Amino acid sequence: MNGAESLVRTLVEGKVDVCFANPGTSEMHFVAALDKVEGMRCVLALFEGVATGAADGFARMADRPASTLLHLGPGLANGLANMHNALRAGTSMVNIVGDHATYHRSYDAPLTSDIEGAARPFSHWVRTSSSAEHVARDGADAIAAAQVKPGKIATLILPADTAWTEVTSLPDGGHVPVPDVAAPRQTSQAAVDEAVALLRGGGRTALFLTDPALRGEALENAGRIADATGARLISQTFNKRMERGVGRVPVERLPYPIDPSIAMLKEVDTLILVGAKAPVAFFAYPGKPSVLTHPGCRIHALALPGEDVEQALAWLADELGAAKARPKRVEAADHPLPEGAITPEKLGQALAALIPEGAILVDESNTSGRTFFNATMQAQPHDLLHNLGGSIGYGLPVTIGAAIACPDRPVFCLESDGSALYTLQALWTQAREGTHVITLLFSNRAYQILKGELTNVGAANAGRKALDMMDLGNPDIDWVSMAASMGVAGSRADTVEDVVRGIRAGLAGKGPYLVEIMM
Amino acid sequence: MNGAESLVRTLVEGKVDVCFANPGTSEMHFVAALDKVEGMRCVLALFEGVATGAADGFARMADRPASTLLHLGPGLANGLANMHNALRAGTSMVNIVGDHATYHRSYDAPLTSDIEGAARPFSHWVRTSSSAEHVARDGADAIAAAQVKPGKIATLILPADTAWTEVTSLPDGGHVPVPDVAAPRQTSQAAVDEAVALLRGGGRTALFLTDPALRGEALENAGRIADATGARLISQTFNKRMERGVGRVPVERLPYPIDPSIAMLKEVDTLILVGAKAPVAFFAYPGKPSVLTHPGCRIHALALPGEDVEQALAWLADELGAAKARPKRVEAADHPLPEGAITPEKLGQALAALIPEGAILVDESNTSGRTFFNATMQAQPHDLLHNLGGSIGYGLPVTIGAAIACPDRPVFCLESDGSALYTLQALWTQAREGTHVITLLFSNRAYQILKGELTNVGAANAGRKALDMMDLGNPDIDWVSMAASMGVAGSRADTVEDVVRGIRAGLAGKGPYLVEIMM
Repeated sequence: MNGAESLVRTLVEGKVDVCFANPGTSEMHFVAALDKVEGMRCVLALFEGVATGAADGFARMADRPASTLLHLGPGLANGLANMHNALRAGTSMVNIVGDHATYHRSYDAPLTSDIEGAARPFSHWVRTSSSAEHVARDGADAIAAAQVKPGKIATLILPADTAWTEVTSLPDGGHVPVPDVAAPRQTSQAAVDEAVALLRGGGRTALFLTDPALRGEALENAGRIADATGARLISQTFNKRMERGVGRVPVERLPYPIDPSIAMLKEVDTLILVGAKAPVAFFAYPGKPSVLTHPGCRIHALALPGEDVEQALAWLADELGAAKARPKRVEAADHPLPEGAITPEKLGQALAALIPEGAILVDESNTSGRTFFNATMQAQPHDLLHNLGGSIGYGLPVTIGAAIACPDRPVFCLESDGSALYTLQALWTQAREGTHVITLLFSNRAYQILKGELTNVGAANAGRKALDMMDLGNPDIDWVSMAASMGVAGSRADTVEDVVRGIRAGLAGKGPYLVEIMM
Repeated sequence: MNGAESLVRTLVEGKVDVCFANPGTSEMHFVAALDKVEGMRCVLALFEGVATGAADGFARMADRPASTLLHLGPGLANGLANMHNALRAGTSMVNIVGDHATYHRSYDAPLTSDIEGAARPFSHWVRTSSSAEHVARDGADAIAAAQVKPGKIATLILPADTAWTEVTSLPDGGHVPVPDVAAPRQTSQAAVDEAVALLRGGGRTALFLTDPALRGEALENAGRIADATGARLISQTFNKRMERGVGRVPVERLPYPIDPSIAMLKEVDTLILVGAKAPVAFFAYPGKPSVLTHPGCRIHALALPGEDVEQALAWLADELGAAKARPKRVEAADHPLPEGAITPEKLGQALAALIPEGAILVDESNTSGRTFFNATMQAQPHDLLHNLGGSIGYGLPVTIGAAIACPDRPVFCLESDGSALYTLQALWTQAREGTHVITLLFSNRAYQILKGELTNVGAANAGRKALDMMDLGNPDIDWVSMAASMGVAGSRADTVEDVVRGIRAGLAGKGPYLVEIMM
């Protein structure tokens, strides 16, 4: 058995059994090992950002990391933007990056670069295997590192000779077990007591929530606390995963634009952080604050990111005697189908009417989708996934991983045209893997968000050259043809009726489908 | 005037007057400044790797750097792979990367990352502007750093507040002049004397050449030296820019595959490096050497990369009394048009027959194009540009920059399907800018090169899962539809006659055209 095979065995035994891959020469032994080891599903991506984004989507829905396979420094570099997004989401990920053979590095061949240096800004854990004997252990350590809460990015660099050299020192199974991962830190009695005092103190109080407080029993406990104390439940603008819809505990969401977000938090005098960081502006704007809460707002951390958020909410509910409280729940509503000309509001209504129970919504709808959150509040129960890193091009790749993690659930990709263009190769993998992804492609032929940002940063009255930098027309992109060229069926929607027909066509099929929505 | 405007003025005055841009919020003041300053051409890319690749192509053909405009750490990350290729080519490039306002960084907003850390592995020079007063000077320093021979990558990080804050200390013109760039180091009398002795010593001697020895008077001098001494002229496998075709000095090329490259160099006992590094294997292969020359080969550096190669060749020719020698020149030949089924050989013949004088060939043809170099030896005079960094996805972006640098010359993109898929968004910018680029898209629906590499690295007899990782079929990509969806006209070629028709259609037009060639 060579080093590559010992690594594949270690990954599979460590329950990292999906690999999103874009391999090259230096990864050929890893690829060859796929057929020698049972149990690794390997998914080809045509661009590395698709692989890292897919791994993000997989881990969010499967609650365990996937791996990626990338080709030296530049292959890693192409995957970094979606690694950044995953890092910011608190996603577990194990990246395997091939490198030149150890003895070949000193020759400075064309693909030589400082891979560790490139990986470090976007990884929590980086290691280069030094010999075939260590590869399995390094892989096991990478899995453990990735599983530290809330989820970390581990990058293991695998020189080609450590992959191809025979291993002699491994036990019979040919793999190394994953070391124990330290349990997340528990919050303190003092932090809980303080939260109890603040919640009982009355006033305008809110819990500020993010994953994992937005699903399962943790969300139930948040609902109980709100019921018992009158506190509002507000989520971060962007969240790793939110369970919502009919029957779930309702949660407000902090808006993205700076002025509405400040306005919402103006009404909050006490903010209790539950796995979330104190809210700050996405960007700085001249004359506007970086901190979104008002100066008099009291901020208290019940649980910091990476701490045991579920336990903290249970503990707090218990101390408040709220265990029996009956949380407010989202009620069912009629969702009449909208008609006529396309508007963001009507698109939200169509979504609310049509997304089936269990759907997964991957949201990169940007300006087109600002009404969707409220519009789908009373939709069927579904999961909502956001981009926490702000690097656009996250949506299409994430759908692949989500669909592979949950093959029986339809995945909706709410996708802006400008964002989709960074990683459009994902459409091909959607088709190849037969993923049930319905992409609603909002075609406004602009970086629409930037037109507003010009004003927000005080650079209004832009001239022609500046506006050209935000214009995606000239030529217009034909998304239905684009998708078809990569094997994804689709249709164009000029009216809301077309949108509805498109969504229904997508739901009726088993594979991917794209609706180009002319905004 | 704010910092952004002082930077744009400094760039334009410093002759960096083309900017390949993919901006976001933090770059809005730079974008707004475009309309306040005359003379900057700003070209929108839909993905940052297109911007950095285009800047590479521009600098290769214009002999001066272009700039890029990128959005924080992840935007930079998306551009790194083609920065790596440019770095390896010795290309000048000035990257401007926006960042959060200095005071906003400590809030760790979603798009925060270690931008300097990400830039360093792929840049020669990295600086973050610390205030608006310094931005112009930093820009001038970046231009100077980029122009160090043979061409360097300079990355300037521009926090948003240094862009938007008013500048008070600049002189009237509002820009800072570019500092003097040190002249390249001259080779030594000893190095020339040694080369003279080796060349006069007889035996199997070759000059090993790369840019700038492959064009203009330097190439002429290499031809004179060959004529006077009987030395062979061999180029690196991949070169920044090669002038070749009828009337030019003929140069052999080191093959890419390891066995033929070793075989060629087995016939060379003395290798004189002229701006090139000693030849090493692109990858390591088990049981094969990293060094491609045979152990008895004497290697002597006449001029190292970055030294004054032109002067070294002139000096050597002078010392050899070869100033009057008459270099061998490529003679014209008949190029009958091939017919029938498509083969790599016939594609080479078609190219040789059809490329017009002054054409620029950007070559990322990989396995499909291994015969093209010899086939086009006697074509009309043209420039040939290679990928020196080995990160595929270089071809389509480079054509944009080459076409903008040389608007009167047709650009051919010899492009493999697998490679094209990394940066296919370049097709849109080709169309938007009306570039005269004829893309010959070799569609073999595979990472064909990897099938050979499996055997080369000793991992032959691959199983189904491994072969799946090299298969780009299922679904097949329809490149004519793909191109059309982004505004690029094209046609499909199932025969050589179709290829000829396609090339002629492309030459007859003014904008981009794509011929999908079914291999």
